Amino acid sequence: MRIISYKEVEAEEAEGSCKLKIRWLNNEGSRNFAVRHIEIESNGYSPCHSHPWEHEIFVLEGNGTALGEKGAESISVGDLISIPGEEIHQIKNTGRSTLKILCMIPK
Amino acid sequence: MRIISYKEVEAEEAEGSCKLKIRWLNNEGSRNFAVRHIEIESNGYSPCHSHPWEHEIFVLEGNGTALGEKGAESISVGDLISIPGEEIHQIKNTGRSTLKILCMIPK
Repeated sequence: MRIISYKEVEAEEAEGSCKLKIRWLNNEGSRNFAVRHIEIESNGYSPCHSHPWEHEIFVLEGNGTALGEKGAESISVGDLISIPGEEIHQIKNTGRSTLKILCMIPK
Repeated sequence: MRIISYKEVEAEEAEGSCKLKIRWLNNEGSRNFAVRHIEIESNGYSPCHSHPWEHEIFVLEGNGTALGEKGAESISVGDLISIPGEEIHQIKNTGRSTLKILCMIPK
């Protein structure tokens, strides 16, 4: 068992994003999927892109929008956003406070 | 893309647990891993057990302990607990408020 606070993990920038910090929490841990903690400041966003792997995103704090093939939908604390592989997607912070999300991807 | 609040998902009890509610958030979604939202009331706990699959657990609210092979360690908001397959484990709520965690397992 390994316990780590997200605050102990170094934050990185992500290509194509704006006002976004990402922390890879379990690079040494999981054999099946990566858990990333992402903070997006007000008016910031993740890259608008698609890729073969799926995302499972849980909203920890704040609110914003999730853009998918059918347009943008509001997201807020307690929402799970399931994005299948190959679907275009982008998360934006449309609120005033920091949007914090947990984003899981298969390894 | 599919968005669902954990509050829209029916809570279930889990065998061997006490004062615990579990919600399977993405039964229809992910092909690779399940995301479960778990609430444990004060003095409640998850089953003390082991199994072949790993856990990745993120603490959303509250605090408690995570028991592993090396004994119990404190856990609080923002911690990621990585439990490899076959390691015995148990989560307890040792605080006063509800302990809320997100627990991911491979499918």
